Amino acid sequence: MKKTCLVIGAGAGIGGSVGKKFAAEGYHAALCRRSNIDGLNAMVDDLREAGWSASGHLLNAVEEDALEELVAAVEAIGPIDTVLYNLGAQIGNRSLDETPLKTFELGWRMACFGLFRIAKVLVPLMVERGHGTILVTSATAAMRGNSGQHSHAAAMAGRRLLCQTMNAEYAAQGVHVVHIMVDGAVDAPDTLGKMLGAEKFEALREAKGKDKDGLLLPEKMAETYFHLATQHRSAWSHEVDLRAYSDLAWWNHAVDI
Amino acid sequence: MKKTCLVIGAGAGIGGSVGKKFAAEGYHAALCRRSNIDGLNAMVDDLREAGWSASGHLLNAVEEDALEELVAAVEAIGPIDTVLYNLGAQIGNRSLDETPLKTFELGWRMACFGLFRIAKVLVPLMVERGHGTILVTSATAAMRGNSGQHSHAAAMAGRRLLCQTMNAEYAAQGVHVVHIMVDGAVDAPDTLGKMLGAEKFEALREAKGKDKDGLLLPEKMAETYFHLATQHRSAWSHEVDLRAYSDLAWWNHAVDI
Amino acid sequence: MKKTCLVIGAGAGIGGSVGKKFAAEGYHAALCRRSNIDGLNAMVDDLREAGWSASGHLLNAVEEDALEELVAAVEAIGPIDTVLYNLGAQIGNRSLDETPLKTFELGWRMACFGLFRIAKVLVPLMVERGHGTILVTSATAAMRGNSGQHSHAAAMAGRRLLCQTMNAEYAAQGVHVVHIMVDGAVDAPDTLGKMLGAEKFEALREAKGKDKDGLLLPEKMAETYFHLATQHRSAWSHEVDLRAYSDLAWWNHAVDI
Amino acid sequence: MKKTCLVIGAGAGIGGSVGKKFAAEGYHAALCRRSNIDGLNAMVDDLREAGWSASGHLLNAVEEDALEELVAAVEAIGPIDTVLYNLGAQIGNRSLDETPLKTFELGWRMACFGLFRIAKVLVPLMVERGHGTILVTSATAAMRGNSGQHSHAAAMAGRRLLCQTMNAEYAAQGVHVVHIMVDGAVDAPDTLGKMLGAEKFEALREAKGKDKDGLLLPEKMAETYFHLATQHRSAWSHEVDLRAYSDLAWWNHAVDI
Repeated sequence: MKKTCLVIGAGAGIGGSVGKKFAAEGYHAALCRRSNIDGLNAMVDDLREAGWSASGHLLNAVEEDALEELVAAVEAIGPIDTVLYNLGAQIGNRSLDETPLKTFELGWRMACFGLFRIAKVLVPLMVERGHGTILVTSATAAMRGNSGQHSHAAAMAGRRLLCQTMNAEYAAQGVHVVHIMVDGAVDAPDTLGKMLGAEKFEALREAKGKDKDGLLLPEKMAETYFHLATQHRSAWSHEVDLRAYSDLAWWNHAVDI
Repeated sequence: MKKTCLVIGAGAGIGGSVGKKFAAEGYHAALCRRSNIDGLNAMVDDLREAGWSASGHLLNAVEEDALEELVAAVEAIGPIDTVLYNLGAQIGNRSLDETPLKTFELGWRMACFGLFRIAKVLVPLMVERGHGTILVTSATAAMRGNSGQHSHAAAMAGRRLLCQTMNAEYAAQGVHVVHIMVDGAVDAPDTLGKMLGAEKFEALREAKGKDKDGLLLPEKMAETYFHLATQHRSAWSHEVDLRAYSDLAWWNHAVDI
Repeated sequence: MKKTCLVIGAGAGIGGSVGKKFAAEGYHAALCRRSNIDGLNAMVDDLREAGWSASGHLLNAVEEDALEELVAAVEAIGPIDTVLYNLGAQIGNRSLDETPLKTFELGWRMACFGLFRIAKVLVPLMVERGHGTILVTSATAAMRGNSGQHSHAAAMAGRRLLCQTMNAEYAAQGVHVVHIMVDGAVDAPDTLGKMLGAEKFEALREAKGKDKDGLLLPEKMAETYFHLATQHRSAWSHEVDLRAYSDLAWWNHAVDI
Repeated sequence: MKKTCLVIGAGAGIGGSVGKKFAAEGYHAALCRRSNIDGLNAMVDDLREAGWSASGHLLNAVEEDALEELVAAVEAIGPIDTVLYNLGAQIGNRSLDETPLKTFELGWRMACFGLFRIAKVLVPLMVERGHGTILVTSATAAMRGNSGQHSHAAAMAGRRLLCQTMNAEYAAQGVHVVHIMVDGAVDAPDTLGKMLGAEKFEALREAKGKDKDGLLLPEKMAETYFHLATQHRSAWSHEVDLRAYSDLAWWNHAVDI
């Protein structure tokens, strides 16, 4: 039975690219996203046509039992060796006034509570198997608050320390949690593209992307994600940053993306 | 009309001592706690007998509208100049298994969401008045995850970056948020005392407290809280740590309290 | 015999203001600076005319034995209860090319090695007396590197962790080291004024200072310095930040001052 | 002409293993160490016998012009694509008393100033070529001070922020600096082995190493070093941690190694 890589949040960006990389390396890729069943099926078909193993799963991560049932369903396909928790809570900059209580809570449910729920069901299985990897895509907002980031920063910071807690408690039992801090704009139409809108996103791509490589390219990021999941247990990384060469680190730039 | 200092979480520890200090300095002290109306009344009576101004309020902070109504009630007494958010989410060390989803969520509601709710109603008033101080008692858990700290660290880290976000957005309008990281055991019967149990707490007091000053003394901490609330706006502190001289900083000690 | 506060780097800014504050609170203020004996004498005379105790000392801090002899000379006046290490290594932004080896080394000698030399001679005396305070004025550069900050950031970061080391080793013996991270422009003609030049400095004062309080005011900062030096040993701060209310924290601003 | 990987500090640990990895991947490995010409020659012979390209160089890094001349000599063999700065300043725990001024200075010369000197001569060449990688082996001491770490922590912290400064200034011109924070004991006879002594080192290996993988294995670490040096420029890491799965992160352990 193949090892499975479960991707929670598999759009046309980091999630899809990481799923593809793991599939190409011999894993079964279980791809989950909230909506767009046609897009999801197309991704799965692409992987299968390349001769790789993949399945698609729709998921509303904040629904009761949804994450728990997903893990059960995917474990039935094959043991989850690696999970990528790729859900964010980015809603752009919103002042305190423009952030209703419900929005603040939803951000936490997506970015922080969802990872805890996944850990509750998956970590015991990984401990039993003596091995497992939890890759967590994170953002600048996990490192500092900033104007307009009430919901995002609070949720992502909580998630970062949840990763630290899980490593402190379970790394010695073989569970490797990696907090991957993506500190810049990703060339991802499904996330940044939707947040900015088509026009602004294309302008950004024109200005920084293409042959300039000034946006983070998901297929290149996937190389590092895969490397981290396959590090020898004598030399694990727990916190890693990623940004385009032409970008400044979060402690040198004032605006969050 | 006197300036009011609203203390959310006023037990026989930091909250009570800070309330007393502000009352002694001429503020009206509005003391809130969840239960023990007799203890609350006794605290209020003590302050009044000293000739100071005080009121007592029972509060279930996670109840809908409770924090919002509290702010309205206290504003009716006098404009809230300073609020101390002194609710924690410390439940001792619990493994992933011993941390139900409800517990994780409750920790967040107490430590992180409650501060956001207070900010939603209070910051606009402070901005309108051009001045206000939000003191937030924090803990080691805000700085790092640790074994058994799933709920606590995730909630407190979110709260820390919420403080940073509020400063970034509102400091220039006169709202001063201070994240006070209490990095050690406090000589507080209502919190540490209850968590440890009477016997262990007395043993700790015997070993480190009394004339050894190895536990943080709330009445001494209150001096720094008051100083921070009265800093001139040209020189504000946003993040401050407090620990007993005989303790190590969180980056040098392995166990969280 | 009066307690002495030794100010290393006492110009018309933080150093002078802190010296004055301690003198006003009953300490003997031993003021040191590198040059301008007339300015130094004028500062000392001012304090004496107010009825306080003060002495002036010229000092070239990077000279062999100079710091060591200074401590001996001041101890002869009275035991040093508090020392303010207020020397910086700010030379503005210099590219790698514009930073000769000598400059890089000098920055380290001023900002980092000097503090170590002071600690070598002073900490044993403080340990013997069971009490002493070392206040260290620090800067944004201690927290992060930035373009042009090769010398400054490397020196200040070393100094920050030297403070941490000293606390870890000597706090329990009564030596209180406080790293005060000044995260913004100070209204100080002797340092920022000289770095920017008279014209730019006046423009900055016009834009941010005066009744706008957008520059850190040394006499207001001195209130916090004094508070920190007089905290009860059950509740010490080791790392504190200071900035004007209208400034952003270092993790939100891109330019170092 | 082959790309060269220059290893500064190539003993039987991280340096030697990284050199070997780069040689195996087609680089010329220029191996430098302070002494033991026979050991150095044996390492070079090993690589050559495997059919790879290597050279050996003796180096006293704190000597005037030594690092500068080394770069010139190695550039004559082939352009330096990647340099590994692998010199440390670990001298075990020494109290303030046991740390002479000379020792403190030497630590800085090895750990911080040496990297700056290398950067002064190498970065301009890398900028001209539009590409270059500077890998810096760092330690827990770069992140926090600790009892006995006066020299080590001050030097390593300065080095960390020097790395940040260089990235801020030169990453956009193609120079990739990676600060690799090795947060645990490495199975390296030339460094940890010498510090502990043969007997203690073997006991540690028995307790944590061998099939337990509880010591960092240099040949496994080298996989991550190589991955970092070959990341696509759209997704660079600047700060990465490495520790054995059975170890705690620095924010959870109290003792530095």
